[in-house]
Amino acid sequence: MARARIVEVGVSSLNAGSLQSRPDAVAVEEPLEIRLQDEALAVVMRTPGHDLELAAGFLLAEGIVAEADDLVTLRHCEDGTDEAYENVVNATLSGARAESAGSLLARRKAERSTVTSASCGVCGKRSIESLQVDAPPFDAQPELRAESFLVMPHRLREAQAVFDKTGGLHAAGVFDSEGRLLVVREDIGRHNAVDKCVGYLLMREMLPMQGATLMVSGRCSFEIVQKALLARIQTICAVSAPSSLAIELAEKSRMGLLGFVREGSLNVYCPDGRYVR
Amino acid sequence: MARARIVEVGVSSLNAGSLQSRPDAVAVEEPLEIRLQDEALAVVMRTPGHDLELAAGFLLAEGIVAEADDLVTLRHCEDGTDEAYENVVNATLSGARAESAGSLLARRKAERSTVTSASCGVCGKRSIESLQVDAPPFDAQPELRAESFLVMPHRLREAQAVFDKTGGLHAAGVFDSEGRLLVVREDIGRHNAVDKCVGYLLMREMLPMQGATLMVSGRCSFEIVQKALLARIQTICAVSAPSSLAIELAEKSRMGLLGFVREGSLNVYCPDGRYVR
Repeated sequence: MARARIVEVGVSSLNAGSLQSRPDAVAVEEPLEIRLQDEALAVVMRTPGHDLELAAGFLLAEGIVAEADDLVTLRHCEDGTDEAYENVVNATLSGARAESAGSLLARRKAERSTVTSASCGVCGKRSIESLQVDAPPFDAQPELRAESFLVMPHRLREAQAVFDKTGGLHAAGVFDSEGRLLVVREDIGRHNAVDKCVGYLLMREMLPMQGATLMVSGRCSFEIVQKALLARIQTICAVSAPSSLAIELAEKSRMGLLGFVREGSLNVYCPDGRYVR
Repeated sequence: MARARIVEVGVSSLNAGSLQSRPDAVAVEEPLEIRLQDEALAVVMRTPGHDLELAAGFLLAEGIVAEADDLVTLRHCEDGTDEAYENVVNATLSGARAESAGSLLARRKAERSTVTSASCGVCGKRSIESLQVDAPPFDAQPELRAESFLVMPHRLREAQAVFDKTGGLHAAGVFDSEGRLLVVREDIGRHNAVDKCVGYLLMREMLPMQGATLMVSGRCSFEIVQKALLARIQTICAVSAPSSLAIELAEKSRMGLLGFVREGSLNVYCPDGRYVR
C-alpha cells in the first residue's frame, strides 16, 4: 500500500518584491500508532511509507525485539473501510519474546513510558538513569579510512527521491564494508529514517553487519548513536554536527563517529587515531 | 548558574586530502528531568541554559499550566554536592492548578505518557485521537504583510550566540507586532528552543501576545504549530519547510504560517489571501 510522501499545496510566494500564487510540494506528516500484541505501544509522527520497517526498527531500538524471528506478524491493521487504519501497525511476538517484552514493558511502566514522536528518540525515559543503554560496547574500535566516507553524502542524495522536491525530509542510509549503499529511507523525523533503515536490515536478517556505516543527512544526536549501537552498526557518518553526548556514547561504545561529511572534507570525532587517511 | 552550551573536542579534519588534528566546538546535549510536585514527569534531551524557561514552556505546552501564577516555585534541585542536580528542575503548582494537573495526569496515564526528548513534541500521546489539541482556534485569521517577515531570519541569526560556532543548534525567537525581537533561545532540540521562548514570555506574564510571530530556524512540524497555538501566538515563520500536518493545524486554527523565509523570498502557506504584499 504505497502512500503519498509529498502532497501539493497552494502557496503565495514572495520573490523579488512580487507575490504570486503557485503550487508547492510539502512533506506528509502523519501519526503512526505502533501496537504490540494488539495493545497501543507508541505513536510516532512520521512520513508514510515503509511503516513496517519503521515499526521493526523502533521495536529493535526499544529492546523489544532483537532479530527477525522475534516478529511473528507485523502488519497494518485493516478493516477495509477506515483509512485511519493505514496509520496503525500491529506486531505480534514469538512466545519467548512476548514474555520478555511483557516483563520489560511492565518494568518500564513505572520508570518510563514507551511512546515517541517524529524527531524523538529518548522518548519515554522517565528518569535520567534510564537513559543508560542496555547494549554492550563493541569489542574494538574500528579502523577508519577517512577518505572512503567522502562519497557517502553524494551517494545518499542520489538515492533520495523526495528531498530535493520539498526540502522537508531527512534521509538515512546504511553502507556495507565495501561502501555499497544497501538501503536509503526518508522521513520528516530523523530518528524515523534511521529506524526504517534498521528495520529493513532486521527484517532481511542482515544484522549485525560487520563494517557497516550508518549515514544521516543532518545532525547526530545521542539517540542516533544509541540506535546504531543497538543495531550493532559500528560507524556513523553525519552530514552535520554531532552533539557532545553523541560523541561521549560513541567513544564509550568503541564506535566510529564522523561529522560534517561534505564534498572533500570531514571531521573524525572518534576513534582517536584509529584511522588511516 | 550559567552552564556551557558548547564544549571543545579534538577532531581529525580531512580537508583537501590532508588529515589534521584540531579543536572543534560541539553543542552540549544533556538530559533535563522535569519534576512536578517532586515527582518525575519527563526527561528532555536539551542544551543546558534557560532550563526554567524550558520547563515552564514545556508545562504550558502540556496543558499543565496556563499562566505565570500557576507556578508557585520553579527551580533546580540542589543538594550542593551532586552536579547531576543541575539537570533536574522541580515545579510546584498553585492549589487549583495542582488539583487539575493531578486529574489531568491521572487521565493521561491511561491514554498517553508525559515524557519527551530533544526534538520531540508529541511525545506521550499513546493513541492517535489524543493528538488532538485542546486549544480553541483563534477568532479570525491574521492579515499578514508578507514583506515584514523577510527581515526576521536575519534578526534571529544576529541574536544567536552559538549557532555559527557549532552548526549544531536550532534557534527560535518571538517577535512582537511591531517586528521587535523579544526573545531568542537556542537548543539542540527544535521544540526545546520554542519551549524556552514560550517559557520566557509566560514567566514574564507576556502571554497571550496579540500580533506576535514565532520564528524557527528550521522546519515547522505539527508540534511547533501546536505549541504556538497553546501559547496563543498566532503566526509562525520558518526558515525551512512546514509539514502537511503543520499546515493543516495552522489553517484549522486560523493561524498564519510562512515557510522558506530567506533573504528576499518566502512562502505563505496560510491564511489564503489574507495578506497584503
